[in-house]
Amino acid sequence: MSRTEITVQLGERSYPIHIGSGLLRESGLYAPHVRGQLAAVVTNETVAPLYAEQVEAALAGAGARGTLRIVLPDGEAFKDWQHLDRIFAALLAARAGRDTVLVAVGGGVVGDMAGFAAASYQRGIAHLQVPTTLLAQVDSSVGGKTAINHPLGKNMIGAFHQPAAVLADTASLATLPPREYAAGLAEVVKYGAIRDPAFLAWIEAHADGLLARDAAALAHAVARSCEIKAQVVAEDERESGARALLNFGHTFGHAIEAATGYGAWLHGEAVAAGMVMACELSQLMGYLKKTDVERVREVVKRTGLPVTGPALAPERLLELMALDKKAARGRTRFVVLETIGRAHLAADIDDAQVRRAVVAAAQ
Amino acid sequence: MSRTEITVQLGERSYPIHIGSGLLRESGLYAPHVRGQLAAVVTNETVAPLYAEQVEAALAGAGARGTLRIVLPDGEAFKDWQHLDRIFAALLAARAGRDTVLVAVGGGVVGDMAGFAAASYQRGIAHLQVPTTLLAQVDSSVGGKTAINHPLGKNMIGAFHQPAAVLADTASLATLPPREYAAGLAEVVKYGAIRDPAFLAWIEAHADGLLARDAAALAHAVARSCEIKAQVVAEDERESGARALLNFGHTFGHAIEAATGYGAWLHGEAVAAGMVMACELSQLMGYLKKTDVERVREVVKRTGLPVTGPALAPERLLELMALDKKAARGRTRFVVLETIGRAHLAADIDDAQVRRAVVAAAQ
Repeated sequence: MSRTEITVQLGERSYPIHIGSGLLRESGLYAPHVRGQLAAVVTNETVAPLYAEQVEAALAGAGARGTLRIVLPDGEAFKDWQHLDRIFAALLAARAGRDTVLVAVGGGVVGDMAGFAAASYQRGIAHLQVPTTLLAQVDSSVGGKTAINHPLGKNMIGAFHQPAAVLADTASLATLPPREYAAGLAEVVKYGAIRDPAFLAWIEAHADGLLARDAAALAHAVARSCEIKAQVVAEDERESGARALLNFGHTFGHAIEAATGYGAWLHGEAVAAGMVMACELSQLMGYLKKTDVERVREVVKRTGLPVTGPALAPERLLELMALDKKAARGRTRFVVLETIGRAHLAADIDDAQVRRAVVAAAQ
Repeated sequence: MSRTEITVQLGERSYPIHIGSGLLRESGLYAPHVRGQLAAVVTNETVAPLYAEQVEAALAGAGARGTLRIVLPDGEAFKDWQHLDRIFAALLAARAGRDTVLVAVGGGVVGDMAGFAAASYQRGIAHLQVPTTLLAQVDSSVGGKTAINHPLGKNMIGAFHQPAAVLADTASLATLPPREYAAGLAEVVKYGAIRDPAFLAWIEAHADGLLARDAAALAHAVARSCEIKAQVVAEDERESGARALLNFGHTFGHAIEAATGYGAWLHGEAVAAGMVMACELSQLMGYLKKTDVERVREVVKRTGLPVTGPALAPERLLELMALDKKAARGRTRFVVLETIGRAHLAADIDDAQVRRAVVAAAQ
């Protein structure tokens, strides 16, 4: 079986991303991080029956002193303090010391919560990310952004806390529901669009294989996405510059999520439609060629994702983006494409222009 | 008026400690950190009436875009998630962005909570420490250890998050209750005992002046304590080695606090009696001379602090230390003195030896 290893270069905080089929059962990948230590598996009710035992067996084989399982309910609605505290309470009840290693097994919510728990427990302990969704494998498990939601704002409380390693087992993607799988592909498309024309061309050529979850296609898609994410994170760990370009399609996407009530549209679905809007905006601003807008729209469609937003007046999205802007005490910023593979941040774009982009994307 | 500036050397996380009388009103010291930004003053109900307006006026004079005041109830009992969340809720309600600066004005509890809030709000914002108790000025405001308590353990949830600057206004110590003031002196004595024989001699020579809160004596005591703390933190930011020596007297002290119910003995009082026990232990182990044990006992007494623990069987303290050890999944470690000014960590000390030290200290 093919295995890929990518290193996120962050000096003393550098770490490997292992990508391959079946590797969540491989003790050797855990061993450098858990030998002689307590390993606490943080997962959710959906993922636990599928993978918790396998991961625990691998941890035992890796020489962990013991394992502990912490199972959270499944869903973004539980990404809050009350459920984070369940992790702390379980660790304290087990008298877990500072050498304990948290092992996040699941999607983005589990990864965010376990990561923030690791950042804060006894002022910081190590953690491993074992992402089991495509979105988590290509995006959220890499880069150290951790957070919980607050009633007054999403992802408002958290930390930058890099994992000691990421184990992306592509075999685990076989169990993903189709919508959730497709939503992950939106971020894959994003990497090609903002940073790598050859990768976008490869996605176009392998869209059918990707949708069919062909193992070889998946392995390449995850590996190339992680390479790009790792490069961007290495350039800008704390998101003061280049890392913001990873938000391509996200300004529109967040507004779509907010407009429809969180959960109705998956994050990746909203980002997919948001990328088409962002492409239209890029063209209206005189950057992107019409044919390239169509290319992005087409590849989004072929990966099973929506190319138009929800049926509502463009004004509603504009309102929500203005609210978001007020919350950030700043300017609404859009990632625009100059060409396929090159992006920059633009602020203070005229509302009328943004409105036109939303309308154009709906055609 | 004399001013001292000490730098905590931590590479890109280096920061100044300013020490002097009246400096919490000096806009110039805040200006480099708050100009054009929102400054949120985090304080408590006791300290707010004394200093909040002065600090806010100084912040306004420093060019802050605005100020916000967050007042917590006073006391260790409120160092929990519910009150930390009050800080987050106030920041979110004010739509405070990532460029907001938290300003902790108060003692150790306020500093710990504001520091952890700064570490976690939007994954990390800047903060200033304006300690108004002696304990906070010589110890907790310097070094970036932040935390809240958990029902299952003290300081269990937190972060290492260095401040952008510390402003220790020695004039604010005039308003401290006598017991709280004396408790702070315990940490001052500690620095001399573990690291600086000349400083211990100076404390002996100026004990009366210190107790009388003589301005010049205080300025020197705070400055020298901060210098030593800054050196130790620079050597070992995350407490994997030398920083643990700052816990001289603390293994015994924590047991005293636990035995008497937290709050009956102030932390500094328990540490004072604990230092005498640790000296007796050091002598029993063949390190410290009897005359040096007496020196420490005498200087502790002269600074108005207890030299003997609470009236309870030594077994009770041993039990509590064993519990603590189990919680840490490790060995009870004691900081022992080789001579005045030189300390090391010792583990696996025979219980009978520890018991003898407790008994000897009670004589």
